[in-house]
Amino acid sequence: MGTLIRGGTVVTASDVMKADVLIENGIVTHIGERILSIGHETIDASNCYLFPGGVDPHTHLDMPFGGTITADDFQTGTIAAAFGGTTTIVDFALHEKGSTLADSLRTWHAKAEGKAAIDYGFHMMVGDMREEVMNEIPAMVEKEGVMSFKVFMAYKNNLQVDDETLFRVLRMAGQNGALVQVHAENGDVIDVLVREALASGQTEPRYHALTRPPEAEGEATARAIRLAEIAGAPLYVVHVTCAHAADQISEARKRGLPIYGETCPQYLVCDYTDYERPGFEGAKYVMSPPLRDQWHQEVLWNKLKNMEMHVLGSDQCSFNYREQKELGLGDFTKIPNGAPTIEDRMSILYHFGVHEGRIGLSKFVALTSTNAAKLFGLYPQKGTIAVGSDADIVVWDPSAERTLSAETHHMNVDYNPFEGMKVSGLPRYVLLRGETIVNHDRFTGRPGMGQFVRGQRFSPVDL
Amino acid sequence: MGTLIRGGTVVTASDVMKADVLIENGIVTHIGERILSIGHETIDASNCYLFPGGVDPHTHLDMPFGGTITADDFQTGTIAAAFGGTTTIVDFALHEKGSTLADSLRTWHAKAEGKAAIDYGFHMMVGDMREEVMNEIPAMVEKEGVMSFKVFMAYKNNLQVDDETLFRVLRMAGQNGALVQVHAENGDVIDVLVREALASGQTEPRYHALTRPPEAEGEATARAIRLAEIAGAPLYVVHVTCAHAADQISEARKRGLPIYGETCPQYLVCDYTDYERPGFEGAKYVMSPPLRDQWHQEVLWNKLKNMEMHVLGSDQCSFNYREQKELGLGDFTKIPNGAPTIEDRMSILYHFGVHEGRIGLSKFVALTSTNAAKLFGLYPQKGTIAVGSDADIVVWDPSAERTLSAETHHMNVDYNPFEGMKVSGLPRYVLLRGETIVNHDRFTGRPGMGQFVRGQRFSPVDL
Amino acid sequence: MGTLIRGGTVVTASDVMKADVLIENGIVTHIGERILSIGHETIDASNCYLFPGGVDPHTHLDMPFGGTITADDFQTGTIAAAFGGTTTIVDFALHEKGSTLADSLRTWHAKAEGKAAIDYGFHMMVGDMREEVMNEIPAMVEKEGVMSFKVFMAYKNNLQVDDETLFRVLRMAGQNGALVQVHAENGDVIDVLVREALASGQTEPRYHALTRPPEAEGEATARAIRLAEIAGAPLYVVHVTCAHAADQISEARKRGLPIYGETCPQYLVCDYTDYERPGFEGAKYVMSPPLRDQWHQEVLWNKLKNMEMHVLGSDQCSFNYREQKELGLGDFTKIPNGAPTIEDRMSILYHFGVHEGRIGLSKFVALTSTNAAKLFGLYPQKGTIAVGSDADIVVWDPSAERTLSAETHHMNVDYNPFEGMKVSGLPRYVLLRGETIVNHDRFTGRPGMGQFVRGQRFSPVDL
Amino acid sequence: MGTLIRGGTVVTASDVMKADVLIENGIVTHIGERILSIGHETIDASNCYLFPGGVDPHTHLDMPFGGTITADDFQTGTIAAAFGGTTTIVDFALHEKGSTLADSLRTWHAKAEGKAAIDYGFHMMVGDMREEVMNEIPAMVEKEGVMSFKVFMAYKNNLQVDDETLFRVLRMAGQNGALVQVHAENGDVIDVLVREALASGQTEPRYHALTRPPEAEGEATARAIRLAEIAGAPLYVVHVTCAHAADQISEARKRGLPIYGETCPQYLVCDYTDYERPGFEGAKYVMSPPLRDQWHQEVLWNKLKNMEMHVLGSDQCSFNYREQKELGLGDFTKIPNGAPTIEDRMSILYHFGVHEGRIGLSKFVALTSTNAAKLFGLYPQKGTIAVGSDADIVVWDPSAERTLSAETHHMNVDYNPFEGMKVSGLPRYVLLRGETIVNHDRFTGRPGMGQFVRGQRFSPVDL
Repeated sequence: MGTLIRGGTVVTASDVMKADVLIENGIVTHIGERILSIGHETIDASNCYLFPGGVDPHTHLDMPFGGTITADDFQTGTIAAAFGGTTTIVDFALHEKGSTLADSLRTWHAKAEGKAAIDYGFHMMVGDMREEVMNEIPAMVEKEGVMSFKVFMAYKNNLQVDDETLFRVLRMAGQNGALVQVHAENGDVIDVLVREALASGQTEPRYHALTRPPEAEGEATARAIRLAEIAGAPLYVVHVTCAHAADQISEARKRGLPIYGETCPQYLVCDYTDYERPGFEGAKYVMSPPLRDQWHQEVLWNKLKNMEMHVLGSDQCSFNYREQKELGLGDFTKIPNGAPTIEDRMSILYHFGVHEGRIGLSKFVALTSTNAAKLFGLYPQKGTIAVGSDADIVVWDPSAERTLSAETHHMNVDYNPFEGMKVSGLPRYVLLRGETIVNHDRFTGRPGMGQFVRGQRFSPVDL
Repeated sequence: MGTLIRGGTVVTASDVMKADVLIENGIVTHIGERILSIGHETIDASNCYLFPGGVDPHTHLDMPFGGTITADDFQTGTIAAAFGGTTTIVDFALHEKGSTLADSLRTWHAKAEGKAAIDYGFHMMVGDMREEVMNEIPAMVEKEGVMSFKVFMAYKNNLQVDDETLFRVLRMAGQNGALVQVHAENGDVIDVLVREALASGQTEPRYHALTRPPEAEGEATARAIRLAEIAGAPLYVVHVTCAHAADQISEARKRGLPIYGETCPQYLVCDYTDYERPGFEGAKYVMSPPLRDQWHQEVLWNKLKNMEMHVLGSDQCSFNYREQKELGLGDFTKIPNGAPTIEDRMSILYHFGVHEGRIGLSKFVALTSTNAAKLFGLYPQKGTIAVGSDADIVVWDPSAERTLSAETHHMNVDYNPFEGMKVSGLPRYVLLRGETIVNHDRFTGRPGMGQFVRGQRFSPVDL
Repeated sequence: MGTLIRGGTVVTASDVMKADVLIENGIVTHIGERILSIGHETIDASNCYLFPGGVDPHTHLDMPFGGTITADDFQTGTIAAAFGGTTTIVDFALHEKGSTLADSLRTWHAKAEGKAAIDYGFHMMVGDMREEVMNEIPAMVEKEGVMSFKVFMAYKNNLQVDDETLFRVLRMAGQNGALVQVHAENGDVIDVLVREALASGQTEPRYHALTRPPEAEGEATARAIRLAEIAGAPLYVVHVTCAHAADQISEARKRGLPIYGETCPQYLVCDYTDYERPGFEGAKYVMSPPLRDQWHQEVLWNKLKNMEMHVLGSDQCSFNYREQKELGLGDFTKIPNGAPTIEDRMSILYHFGVHEGRIGLSKFVALTSTNAAKLFGLYPQKGTIAVGSDADIVVWDPSAERTLSAETHHMNVDYNPFEGMKVSGLPRYVLLRGETIVNHDRFTGRPGMGQFVRGQRFSPVDL
Repeated sequence: MGTLIRGGTVVTASDVMKADVLIENGIVTHIGERILSIGHETIDASNCYLFPGGVDPHTHLDMPFGGTITADDFQTGTIAAAFGGTTTIVDFALHEKGSTLADSLRTWHAKAEGKAAIDYGFHMMVGDMREEVMNEIPAMVEKEGVMSFKVFMAYKNNLQVDDETLFRVLRMAGQNGALVQVHAENGDVIDVLVREALASGQTEPRYHALTRPPEAEGEATARAIRLAEIAGAPLYVVHVTCAHAADQISEARKRGLPIYGETCPQYLVCDYTDYERPGFEGAKYVMSPPLRDQWHQEVLWNKLKNMEMHVLGSDQCSFNYREQKELGLGDFTKIPNGAPTIEDRMSILYHFGVHEGRIGLSKFVALTSTNAAKLFGLYPQKGTIAVGSDADIVVWDPSAERTLSAETHHMNVDYNPFEGMKVSGLPRYVLLRGETIVNHDRFTGRPGMGQFVRGQRFSPVDL
């Protein structure tokens, strides 16, 4: 006996079809016309789209940062994600100086187990890419199902790698079916600008943005691409915010290189002027890279539309405004970086993308789910509604409306960067491996029901 | 009782899944795991891919040209197409001076009816875009299911339109949900170069290419795009052959414009040196635009890979080498333009694309079927394997091998431009609306079983 | 006995040097330190620059247009030019339908003779480029000293040439050491837009701009360049107004092609908002191509700075606001096109360019004099201060200030498009072939003293 | 009493004029027609061009490198330079770890004094850009007449600076009227590639090139430009070799940035295949960056033609093939980098540029003399033939022919990279401050007669 979703319109990254979907043992087993419901539990999806559960490949849950820790852990964060339609995250396991990748991964498994309400994979966020650590990469891919490794071109004297390290990681990854992710900002330049700003008393939140100019992001993106080109390796650029960087990715792809870009909802609908909000409110938008001038938004939309960028990640990294963001009162460098975005990622793209006519339904699916699954080796288990795939399905009601707000959201944090935005489209049901975990406004799943999903070697040949 | 295709791997423009496909009344009704075969006719697809039947949006069957007529009509042409995996064509109904679009369409319906072995739609190839003709466009779209209109920027003093006409057609089409296609070469320049060549005794086939330089194609493509931009209309550029033109399309898309490009198999694997074959053999490759220097091929492949161009059309237009191509002995302008490519279109892309690793399976499907169906208003009836869609399915055996040759092909023409090329991958079965029309090397369909498919208004929001 | 200009700073297109200049028989014979003044008339140039007399290669004097005639003829126009520092113009001799180039040239010689107060050459502005006319080109170059031929891609059903004609002229010119100039706007598109605007009652001056979008200029520029490329000929694009066109020139030059661009002072300091002036005042700015949105100005300045465009022409074409511009009350197409700019061309570039730091002194000289002289075959007779060159010299006082205004200008027209602009820099003396024709605010020359200068064959190898 | 050069054609960066040149006290005092020769020494320049003496801004004389020292010191090097038409060099004073700029400069003054046969300035080649060293910059500019500072993005663990240092130097220089020069190659990547090559036994000279790919040069160039952009400073990129780098400069200039590029004669006429010469001969061409594939040459020529690059430097750095280059037998990293090019720099550009029609005479002067003088603060003392400028003049006989060869050259080195090339054009006389130092094939100057020339603050407003 299975679960039958009836009367909806199935949407994949290429197709839109009216069809029923039968789920057995957590797997989609049949997609068909008027599947007989006898013996099956039935979910009504009339007037709804069936989207593949969202795959959010960029989250930071239960992560220490500058003496504090993110407001959301794997429990609150994944429940909030589920409410937004996301059924899989790939979180960044933080590798700290002195430790091994294996140990760091174990730590992160421990954080997720028993808490995660949706499925999860891990990237390694490598904080100390010394020789032995680099040599762990093949084993991480083969044995641990971790195939993506993030390095930082920013955060001087901390996470920042030099070009030799970046180049060697790219090569090592390329040879082992792994994918390197870069945070692409020139940390050296930023470091000088930050010190200068502080020295001259420029301490308000907006100086966070002014000391991280788009040129610094464009530069680092260009550099990472060239190094990947020489290394013969693919590259994934996280959280692209501006034309300076996005154009570099386009240009590289034009030459046939396997370069991929991700942007985030906040860069599509927020902008630099948010830093100029009264009082200390700009701190809510302190993230790296920062929000840009508004004209960049149209550039990013065009890149998404043309698949010159492939993924919408949330870059979820939540800190309360009170007590956490406020650590940076009087010194913007002390403001914990990040924003709570895991819950509204898909709503933002649906409303401003699909509803307002910028992109179509299939592109919505590609950007929120399929492409990330393909790039991070989770496909076809995740990322689509297809026979044999996990029954991670969002029954999405396009006529529902909602106002995004900290008062109603499910994240464990006291503000919402999209506060007050009215959006069309909302999950009516969210299924994880066939089980309904969100039913309208109730969470019907269980902390701990989320499972680890292994990433397969990199080979997204069609992106 | 239906037809069940068992054991294959279904490929769509975004997905690849092992699944059985059930067909009832010519429609795909279920895609599932191990569908029970009781009561169904069964087709074995083990070790095979199931591709959506090819949609070839660029054919010229039973078409008069310069005092002769194409070697293939709707019977021989569509049977050959079927052998290659194509189940729908969109043929160009030729509108001649003095006549109406309605009359021309009737003529073309008469050519196809009773003969076509696969389904077909029509574009209008407008030969005389005078005021009344332009005013027929709304009715063609609404009543006749014809939504695409081709105009020529080449063929001076014959088919060529001036910019005013092109601009007005773009605007008219844009306002009526129709799509304008352009043959983009600067006919004025070519006309001068041709006259000069003939005047100086340059009459061999290669002068066909030398009098139609890629700059003339690049120019016209840029012009058509700008006119579409001002008109606020979408545009489809047929048979793009070179970087000069393809880069213009990319640049326009980067700015967010709805511009689409098509290339053809011959431009991917043949090149200018084919005109230098001994004797008069170069005439086999006389088509417009002509084959280019080899370096353009890699550019075209990259554009296909990145979806900067969306469609592979055949531009089928067959003339026998003997007696037809030979009309141009001593004067290249008398060589009937075109080549027989309808049958091998998909094989060429599969072998040189998928088999040789340039593109993946989903992109193959997108380029040979889905995108054309979406652009020309045939989707979702055509262009995919999805519940509710026509059961036009190719059971493709990737391990089969074949040598392309006039001796074995099914086109009614005495040469093959790809003669001698060995390719991997071959249709084992081809189904049209659930009926097997090709079974290994036998045609099991019937002339006349092909049906006209109406094109819906233009709205391919996700391309 | 000669004339000695003492104490000034000589500026050429590459050099700046303190030096005295000795003029004998109208020619510069010595440039030196402290040249002895005995026996020479002396002109004091202390604290002044010595610029080569301006060469304005784009004027329309005594020209009929739409039933009226320009407000300035060769007398008033050239005297005004002299006041602005210009000592040579190249005027457009209008070739009208049915006539020959030779006849048209004779007509224009007659207009200039006895009236022109500065030297002049002629371009032919070809209104009817039929076969015989094209065949006159070699003789015009060889015998008449006319080496530049302007054709129009706009003005449908009137001056506009088709691409065949444009291509053939390019080829003919290229083979005969002549230079083709194009007015690059797509006349077909504009014609449709204009008719539509009028049909819908959009008759105010600003519709002149709105019916001539920058895309139409970009398109035509790209087309002319491609045709020149195929023809193997150089090309000069007159009055470039926008990024759409200027970028095409840059791109072509990057590929090594001999393509040259001209812009005009009005495009550097006026913009679209001038059409929105109260009442009918926008008519003062009706010219073709029209003024653009302000952001284009910075693009044009960068092109001048980098020598991606080479010349500043005035496109002088003056019509009185009263009675002439007013012909277009109620119908913008009836507004005579053009503006009075011959007098202030150099002042505008000096003030907004040199004085405000956008360009240097040598570039000022290159753009206002040297490059035009080189491109139109007048160099080294004109366009520089060099031994052996004509002593056409402006003694320019950089500390003088002036407010541009119809009340004080010397053009025979009732308004000034730059009305009220305050500029630094002003001619103290202007010498034509050694004779002082402007002395502060007095004209000291004579109508008729201007001589025809023959253009030599095209070979500006260093531009 | 002075020196009179009679009957020649004076060429400047913008002009070409038949004129006599009078020199008094080492300075050009008059340029004129038929200057009376009474009382003057006369030099016959009939049928010759008079070029400004070459300014070579990129030489390494008497420089230690990897345990050896360049074959040419200030005596042999400057005499050879003079034979080639160069009358001023700007040599790189090497600043070594631990020392101050002031000390290093003193050392270099000592090397030049008493030896240099032509005038010279100095750049500082900063080997250790620590805080105190950076703080010396203002004094170097103000007091020492040194206004250009070179830093290295290559040579890991040796000269290479990190981005913080580069950025801070750019800012410091920009604020003090100094100019930063970069050697732009990504040293980190190269370091890895070199170690890998050696580890796998790839020791021949060509691996020098293969471990320094053009992508590494393109990357570093893009990075330096972005840092200069953020710093608001100008930048000079030395020895640009490839499209990857040159296109970055063009793109930056298009945006209006003050970025300048230099290439060298060897990159215009030699290419990668020179590394494949038999035996160890490839070592003669080991320099950094290396020679590239031939197609880059046309790109470089176009950049020079369009002034997208401004300077031809020699990058003279001579080591004997025997005993010096041979240090790298069996290990390409031991081959001293550099080639002897100081003597033939102008001949190469004249022959392949002017004589073969790629550029004109004025551009030749700009590239070999004027632009370097302007960029490095030597203009107008150096870099032109103008009243008041030093009488550094080359009387250049365009009809003379010569075969470049180690047998006849004047450099103190046993090979010539241009061996066997036949060139047109040769200095007949070379004058330094009015004194003839080369007379046909005799050196008539004296070691030690060269003087130090102070560089003025950066302000080349017209480049």
